[in-house]
Amino acid sequence: MSWLLTESAFNPKTAKAYEGLFTQGSGYLHVRGSLEEHLSDCPQNIDRLRKPTNVTAERFPETKSKWGTYVPGIYGPHPLLNWELINLPWFLGIALYVDGEKLDMELGCIRDYKRELCLRTATLTRGLTWCTKSGKTLKIFFKRFASAARPQLFIQRVRVIPLQDTTIVVHSGIDADVRTNGHNHFRSVDFSRTGNNSLCCTVLTDGNDTVWIETCLLADGAISWDWQRDDRRAELETKVEIQAGAEFVLEKRSAVCTTRDLTNVTCREILDAAFQHTYEELHAEHCAVWEERWNRSDVQIEGDDTSQLAMRCAIYHLLRAHVPNDPRVAIDAKGYAGEAYFGRFFWDTEMYLLPFYLYTDPERARTLVGFRIRTLPGAKETAASYGYGGAKYPWEADRDGHDSCPNWQYADHEIHVTADVVYGFAHYAAATGEESFLTTECAEAIVETARYWLQRIDWRKGEKHPSILGVMGPDEYSPITNNNSYTNRMVKFALSLAAQVGPHAGASSEECKQFLHVAELLPIPRREDGLVLQCEEFEKLAEPRFDELWIDRSLPFAAQVSQERLYRSKCLKQADVLMMMMLFPKDFTEWEIQAAWDYYLPYTTHDSSLSAGVHAIIACRLGLREQAWEFWKKTCGLDLDLRQGGAAEGIHIANAGASWQVAIFGFAGMASALESDILTLRPDLPDSWTQLSFPIVWKGHQVRIDITREQCSVTNCSDRLLKFAVWDERGFAKPGETVKIPLRNHNPY
Amino acid sequence: MSWLLTESAFNPKTAKAYEGLFTQGSGYLHVRGSLEEHLSDCPQNIDRLRKPTNVTAERFPETKSKWGTYVPGIYGPHPLLNWELINLPWFLGIALYVDGEKLDMELGCIRDYKRELCLRTATLTRGLTWCTKSGKTLKIFFKRFASAARPQLFIQRVRVIPLQDTTIVVHSGIDADVRTNGHNHFRSVDFSRTGNNSLCCTVLTDGNDTVWIETCLLADGAISWDWQRDDRRAELETKVEIQAGAEFVLEKRSAVCTTRDLTNVTCREILDAAFQHTYEELHAEHCAVWEERWNRSDVQIEGDDTSQLAMRCAIYHLLRAHVPNDPRVAIDAKGYAGEAYFGRFFWDTEMYLLPFYLYTDPERARTLVGFRIRTLPGAKETAASYGYGGAKYPWEADRDGHDSCPNWQYADHEIHVTADVVYGFAHYAAATGEESFLTTECAEAIVETARYWLQRIDWRKGEKHPSILGVMGPDEYSPITNNNSYTNRMVKFALSLAAQVGPHAGASSEECKQFLHVAELLPIPRREDGLVLQCEEFEKLAEPRFDELWIDRSLPFAAQVSQERLYRSKCLKQADVLMMMMLFPKDFTEWEIQAAWDYYLPYTTHDSSLSAGVHAIIACRLGLREQAWEFWKKTCGLDLDLRQGGAAEGIHIANAGASWQVAIFGFAGMASALESDILTLRPDLPDSWTQLSFPIVWKGHQVRIDITREQCSVTNCSDRLLKFAVWDERGFAKPGETVKIPLRNHNPY
Repeated sequence: MSWLLTESAFNPKTAKAYEGLFTQGSGYLHVRGSLEEHLSDCPQNIDRLRKPTNVTAERFPETKSKWGTYVPGIYGPHPLLNWELINLPWFLGIALYVDGEKLDMELGCIRDYKRELCLRTATLTRGLTWCTKSGKTLKIFFKRFASAARPQLFIQRVRVIPLQDTTIVVHSGIDADVRTNGHNHFRSVDFSRTGNNSLCCTVLTDGNDTVWIETCLLADGAISWDWQRDDRRAELETKVEIQAGAEFVLEKRSAVCTTRDLTNVTCREILDAAFQHTYEELHAEHCAVWEERWNRSDVQIEGDDTSQLAMRCAIYHLLRAHVPNDPRVAIDAKGYAGEAYFGRFFWDTEMYLLPFYLYTDPERARTLVGFRIRTLPGAKETAASYGYGGAKYPWEADRDGHDSCPNWQYADHEIHVTADVVYGFAHYAAATGEESFLTTECAEAIVETARYWLQRIDWRKGEKHPSILGVMGPDEYSPITNNNSYTNRMVKFALSLAAQVGPHAGASSEECKQFLHVAELLPIPRREDGLVLQCEEFEKLAEPRFDELWIDRSLPFAAQVSQERLYRSKCLKQADVLMMMMLFPKDFTEWEIQAAWDYYLPYTTHDSSLSAGVHAIIACRLGLREQAWEFWKKTCGLDLDLRQGGAAEGIHIANAGASWQVAIFGFAGMASALESDILTLRPDLPDSWTQLSFPIVWKGHQVRIDITREQCSVTNCSDRLLKFAVWDERGFAKPGETVKIPLRNHNPY
Repeated sequence: MSWLLTESAFNPKTAKAYEGLFTQGSGYLHVRGSLEEHLSDCPQNIDRLRKPTNVTAERFPETKSKWGTYVPGIYGPHPLLNWELINLPWFLGIALYVDGEKLDMELGCIRDYKRELCLRTATLTRGLTWCTKSGKTLKIFFKRFASAARPQLFIQRVRVIPLQDTTIVVHSGIDADVRTNGHNHFRSVDFSRTGNNSLCCTVLTDGNDTVWIETCLLADGAISWDWQRDDRRAELETKVEIQAGAEFVLEKRSAVCTTRDLTNVTCREILDAAFQHTYEELHAEHCAVWEERWNRSDVQIEGDDTSQLAMRCAIYHLLRAHVPNDPRVAIDAKGYAGEAYFGRFFWDTEMYLLPFYLYTDPERARTLVGFRIRTLPGAKETAASYGYGGAKYPWEADRDGHDSCPNWQYADHEIHVTADVVYGFAHYAAATGEESFLTTECAEAIVETARYWLQRIDWRKGEKHPSILGVMGPDEYSPITNNNSYTNRMVKFALSLAAQVGPHAGASSEECKQFLHVAELLPIPRREDGLVLQCEEFEKLAEPRFDELWIDRSLPFAAQVSQERLYRSKCLKQADVLMMMMLFPKDFTEWEIQAAWDYYLPYTTHDSSLSAGVHAIIACRLGLREQAWEFWKKTCGLDLDLRQGGAAEGIHIANAGASWQVAIFGFAGMASALESDILTLRPDLPDSWTQLSFPIVWKGHQVRIDITREQCSVTNCSDRLLKFAVWDERGFAKPGETVKIPLRNHNPY
């Protein structure tokens, strides 16, 4: 099947990683995959002051479980780390008691345990047999989903079948005694009982948003519910007698609303509407939405179940984490599944995430670029805060586009994001074919960022070209460098576009000339033999001496040496020159790309989760099949590798986007719409893959691609003629037609 | 007289600057010059979280007054900024009430106000006439001193002479409701009444030290004292009737003890001993100690009272801030007169402070170098924390020699301090003539730091010399540079010394060879025309564009541009190449020094208080008389310039040391004992100075120097023959002899 992520035995050491991996969400609302009954010795209300530090080497608190309930857009101020996504009250709790014993995965006697996230239906199930200390045996099945059809609704069901007559006590409510990165963001918490079997929690955040969570319990045979509460928690309690062999069913339906909602519906209205439907109906409509999503985006890999499952896991989280129709937020670095990066928006948005949406569901892509357009005022303020005119997009954008990055080396120096944003605009326009987008909605952002660049450049004494000095490129282990190739290339791109778009946003022709002039003159530094240098001074850095210093290769290099050694050495955190070459392949000959690969790879630590995917794609292009395969495995397996923590602190969502890119831009060899006007594929599947199939939207055409070792089939599902190329062979497909191009002769390797 | 620092009118805007400037201390104990009765609307118990930031551009809370009571060595942990010197309870408070009105400098009607710090006697006096709202007139005189003879004792006296019969109410006690940089460091505060007129405050700090402060009040005609207390404050209260024209005298004697004391005496014992003496006797013994200090160190300037007073102000604070006979602490960056730099120890110790003590009172110098020897274990741990062997002295040393610097760019990269410490050892040995000091007490520190350097260097591909990469030199506006000249030169010095000293500390001859080898090969980068470069890449930095960006020259450049611009530009915070040339004058020709002056001066912001003094000395050496004079004024006037805040956040104690150095190494042109074996002077006085006289200890010789425009007199106060040189003329002085060298022919300018 390759749709099921399975936990086949409970282990407290990997519980947090599964919590992240099993995160469910509707875009509006995201909840980590914590156990309904929670674990013992694992309080969620511990205060701690998380400090500004380098996340690569940061150690997070060791705890078996970390609850996470996130509504994108609900942020609050952290005393040291600026605004962060708030972890909201945990409302999925359900505790079952039999003869005074609480169901507990660690302390109880549990058999036949299995937990599965069905990616296809975005449904989490858990089955187990509980043998109580009092000698009872119960089969218990949990099931839950964040409704895709009703994004503010979360549905849970528990089925209990005792082998003996059993009295079961149920406690279930809402726990608002939670923290975000150790910080309490709630100014006030109120509970009200809204009915015999329902209660509502109202939270006022320190970001001045109000959040309402209402939950309702339905239990066979439960006549009345007691409730108990303290300042931060409230729960309902009931007791039910179940006969041996009978099935007891408990349902918990919860709705979430906030003052930031785009609609005015209340929790009560959401619940009332849901109560017009049975559990099965609600689940069916939820599954139907997911089926439609998968139809647009599923990548099918035959011959390799591991890759297939990993690919779908990545796509599942990409589909889940996206907030549809709301350009007020983008997708945060942990895919709304953890707090490590504070719910902020990075260059990941444009470079790692956008392509998946662009080529599968362009409307979703539009909300991502829309976020940048909407936050242009914040980018202007950010530029001004540094003493520049124009607009500077922040390294870590909060919801208003202000820089929340608490570490100056990134916030001040990792400025390429401002050009990356413009690249994202252009990619959107090229892939959708909506070229007018650039001269209308995006024009101001393109021109304002260009104005920032004109002030950010320096003309050094004795040189006839401008420079961009003091920057950190994608490689975050070289903090302050001159003329970083990636940054300069991206700025050249952005300024060239600004020169074209300028007149549409009030730029004078003199200004546009300046944009073009600087774009043309910005250097891409090279060594005498032509090697593209990451930055001017790269060769003056120290050798990193990995053999001597990188003792444990299972840990990041950064965890084993001091930051100052990283900062003076040639070690790369991630692809930098190669990232540029991936994005601008036409600028470089194959020799140049191979030379860069040969030179930089031995220096690259891949300490960043953004690295492996880029390397896989470049390896595909260079025909380095073995290395492409190794990097693919590293990319797609990242969140599934529980030994390394996996998704414990959240999903590596950029890496999920990279996984999709490796399959499509790498193994299928698709050229991006910025590289090619017509759909172009250069497929070369890994040895174990017998078939790779996926849907693509190419400039408005719905297309289906099926690649085997023998042939590449292009099916034009649109109503217009589709031109395409497979390797060197051009073709076209009429509406509805499938054209098959043999591959044997094409693959040059 | 030029011994009196005078505040001739009270102004709340400059009150904080005077508090710093009027700090009194005994070495053991330091108290800022706050008013006895305090000011209104100026609470001292405001909590705030001071964050890690760049002190140059940091803004401190605007408050009229900041109490400061410091015992060197009493430190506690700050939640973000590591260990800091704790501001202890304020025990100098005395409030006077007449007819319900409290004496208040702002709210009351005050005439004939004058406050004076007598530098000669380290005694602070205040006189005023108070016209109460009820129509009474009182003449009031305050006097206070931190006893130099009994360093744990503080004595205050108030004399009140009313013109009418007056009832005066006195409140006086101890206020422990204070903060350090907004943080509460007291785990517990207890008060006990130890007698009719005395009380004791016991504080347990979060650094696990206990501090006792006991205070005793003596008042003419006060029969009994009431006391009142709350959790954090306690005070005694009495009421006295004074006849018109009679004098009421109140004395407050306070003693301080801590669990870190080297002696076991108690506050009560200190007070009991003091009560064997009258106020006059105690003051006389205090003045006698200061007279002895001044005899060793006074620098007399004739013809320029402003310079004279500023020079003595600097020396006063140098004498005050030093903790005698206690190598467990050195002198912190604010001279125990403020909290800005957290009471930590910087390279200032060796480069800016040590010379004054070395050449006036070598025993005091010994406790400073002793601090580095004592904290060698901390330096070893610091090296290990970065992954190196050997010892790395911290940029901001706490009392145990661990790095407390909360900003990584300094802590990680400003590594020259480790070599500076060794330079300090060598300077001590050379100036005192105790060469064996290096091969005994210092040997381990010299060798361990050399071992650190051997691991800290890099051998870059294709180069035949080692490099020190990724460093910040003295100029803190270039954070991560390669082969900083200052750093490399200092390391060459330290390694050469290690090669000599090594065998005395167990270094193998192979190891010593390596020390020497690296010392010889470390480069001092130069431009093609011979200009000494601050670092390899200096010329690749951006032009700083001061004309355009440095709008308000009365504020630091750093306050007007972003840090990232500082970090990519040629702007210098302070002397860097010139600092090296000041310390190693024989390495460079006059042409080279002049070229460096011409090149770097236009780029230098002097944002650091460490800059002007070095420039003054170099200007003296280059015969740039006008510039020497300007930089001298800037140096000696820094803490006296109330418009720029002066000493509000503490004394710029390194600059005080630099002031002494400008007079001695600059205008008197004395060569340091590391440059010259014999006492060498190249005097060239500023135009307005008719005479410059000072005592010097030169390799155990007591010497007195008197310089006029016509001649330089050298008086040998020792019992051995003294060889010396004045400009090019060599001479010698027998014991007791004064030798006069005419100057007219010597001055080459």
